[in-house]
Amino acid sequence: MKAIVISIGNELLSGKTVNTNAAFISGKLHELGIETLRVVTIGDDGAAIQRQLAEAVKQADVVITTGGLGPTHDDITKRAVTEFFGSRLVFREAILRNIEERFRRRGVPMPAVNRNQAMVPQEAELIDNPVGTAPGMLFRRRKTLIFVLPGVPREMQAMMQEFVVPFLKKQGRLEPIRVWQYRTTGIAESRIYQICQDILEEFRDYEVAFLPKFTGVDIRVAVKAASPNAGRFAEFETELYRRIGTYIYTQGEEELEAVVGRLLKEKGLTIAVAESCTGGLVQDRITNVSGSSEYFLGGMVTYSNESKMKFLGVREASLKTHGAVSDVVAREMAVGVREAMGTGIGVSTTGIAGPTGATPEKPVGLIYIGLSAGETLLARRFVFTNDRRLNKELGAQAALEMVRRYLLGIPIENNTTK
Amino acid sequence: MKAIVISIGNELLSGKTVNTNAAFISGKLHELGIETLRVVTIGDDGAAIQRQLAEAVKQADVVITTGGLGPTHDDITKRAVTEFFGSRLVFREAILRNIEERFRRRGVPMPAVNRNQAMVPQEAELIDNPVGTAPGMLFRRRKTLIFVLPGVPREMQAMMQEFVVPFLKKQGRLEPIRVWQYRTTGIAESRIYQICQDILEEFRDYEVAFLPKFTGVDIRVAVKAASPNAGRFAEFETELYRRIGTYIYTQGEEELEAVVGRLLKEKGLTIAVAESCTGGLVQDRITNVSGSSEYFLGGMVTYSNESKMKFLGVREASLKTHGAVSDVVAREMAVGVREAMGTGIGVSTTGIAGPTGATPEKPVGLIYIGLSAGETLLARRFVFTNDRRLNKELGAQAALEMVRRYLLGIPIENNTTK
Repeated sequence: MKAIVISIGNELLSGKTVNTNAAFISGKLHELGIETLRVVTIGDDGAAIQRQLAEAVKQADVVITTGGLGPTHDDITKRAVTEFFGSRLVFREAILRNIEERFRRRGVPMPAVNRNQAMVPQEAELIDNPVGTAPGMLFRRRKTLIFVLPGVPREMQAMMQEFVVPFLKKQGRLEPIRVWQYRTTGIAESRIYQICQDILEEFRDYEVAFLPKFTGVDIRVAVKAASPNAGRFAEFETELYRRIGTYIYTQGEEELEAVVGRLLKEKGLTIAVAESCTGGLVQDRITNVSGSSEYFLGGMVTYSNESKMKFLGVREASLKTHGAVSDVVAREMAVGVREAMGTGIGVSTTGIAGPTGATPEKPVGLIYIGLSAGETLLARRFVFTNDRRLNKELGAQAALEMVRRYLLGIPIENNTTK
Repeated sequence: MKAIVISIGNELLSGKTVNTNAAFISGKLHELGIETLRVVTIGDDGAAIQRQLAEAVKQADVVITTGGLGPTHDDITKRAVTEFFGSRLVFREAILRNIEERFRRRGVPMPAVNRNQAMVPQEAELIDNPVGTAPGMLFRRRKTLIFVLPGVPREMQAMMQEFVVPFLKKQGRLEPIRVWQYRTTGIAESRIYQICQDILEEFRDYEVAFLPKFTGVDIRVAVKAASPNAGRFAEFETELYRRIGTYIYTQGEEELEAVVGRLLKEKGLTIAVAESCTGGLVQDRITNVSGSSEYFLGGMVTYSNESKMKFLGVREASLKTHGAVSDVVAREMAVGVREAMGTGIGVSTTGIAGPTGATPEKPVGLIYIGLSAGETLLARRFVFTNDRRLNKELGAQAALEMVRRYLLGIPIENNTTK
């Protein structure tokens, strides 16, 4: 089955609102094995709505529109759709009672304008809106199903989950599909592609998408049940891990800090962090995980040399001889914060986030990350070539990845982004 | 002028990635007075790309495509576009050297697959990519300009700002429009609307958009040169400031931390931060500002009670009597970090980010923020009702806003979100 999504609303075309609805809908359809051919975003414009509907019912089995069902003057989807299907608006007492009831529960009198929402196309099957006042509508044109939903994300989502998805499942025209992903960090998209080219060719019927973010590449795999290699998941995975397994930190949606947190809990270890160039971001990420207080005791942001000496015991001689941005100081910071906080692991960052502060030997984006854990004491050198914020993000990611690698006994390389 | 945006990428049709690019682009076009007729999102599918291009060049003066310019097998936009314009791919040495240079600076060998990116359509004018390897392209078809940009948001944004927008401005076909914004924090959208309703009515020809984010509301104003009230900017602004001026932290794009940084520099003051529930986020934000080392000396993330006592001198009695999440402890933390770091200002956060850790008296989202500066010593209580990440973000925002208010002599309220 193929789908087309039509998003309606002027606010989507003026940069005011990001179209998150389309991603939600196409994600739900994808899970059902329904391919979205395209998403078309148009304004509150009757002619444009009808033009796009005409195109869509010719090409798709499922058409989903969102937006323009509100009670005010600029919401014209209902009128446009009614006209398109050659139907006419009729008053439905039950809908009005439902809307009145919603306002009563909120303790607010119903504005007269909401009465309009009880007028619906005679031909439409109505879709109950469990969280708002505008009902959804279902039309049929030959084999094509047309769902007309409101644009408020909460309302649309509720109707997708409670009505549209179960309805589509019952159609019996779905092709079962399996979707999963691997999240990697420290390896570039082009390098993964190079190393894995042979598997991608062998499993040509697997739809493999590389989703590069600055902090890593997510690899998403989709396979239809009827695919020739559908039964060879395990083999595919083994081959993938043989090539890039050390870079994969999760097979789900987990963030790297959650993976590190889980490993720390499993091993009963605690951690402290001393940050210079990343400025608190490593600790911010660690504490995004609920329950992180079990293993994260605290840390420092030592931006000045004085604070590095006073709180972390970094030696003045090290700062003078090697500079604050050096492997020597990174190691001393890691040891210092571990001792100060009394944790099993100490990790540190020191570098030049930019855009200022560079010297001929020390370019913007140069970052040293230190690790003190058990008998291990090391520092690794990274050079990122981005702006200040991204250099901080890449540094924080590399620091967390260093901890993950240590906890799993994976070798820790100098510059993990290849 | 009218525009059509074509977003290309399978990840946009599988629900994996939200199409933020389209909103960015149509927002920029809106500022130029260019109306976006529609956004069409399609997969990495040559035939679909060519079909949409054919439609678009017929209807729009400006067509902008994003996505599909990466080096790997699923990036086919370049080929599809080249074919569409009846052009052919030629090798450009200068691009290859540029790509090689990017990899060299990162200290990483260039994968062979990146060589493809130096092949470009003969007919295209190239658009420099200041932050990535894929160049953009400009084609012309009669009066229509077609910009082909990469899908990585940072790359697309840089090319929009540095090339596309200035280029369109020079076309001389634009209707002059003035767009500016006020950024507020600590006041809800509905409250702004209520207080400012009379100005909005008086300046009905001003297009005023409220852009609510969780940390504040940006107020964007657009006025066409030919508008009746076009000459009354100053009056509009005076009236706005009379009503909500204390909540406006900038009239530009500046982030709150940049505003705070500027004020600290102007007054020659330094700052230190002690964070509990915000986990490093306040310091992360402060250090996002280039040059922040001039006034930010450092700080602590004291997640455990022990670290609050050891590094900040919080008294055991205070922790026992009032608990770590209390105004007493917030004040002691602020004083403690100010003394430890020897700064003019100390600011602190302590609270329950959630979802666990609440008690009957102390709900999730309860945060105390402390401030010690000059003779001032105070703590303010906030209750946020969101998830862990958002509670952290709201806490960090409130802490920065407290410093801004102190520096400007604006009264500091208990819960600044009304």
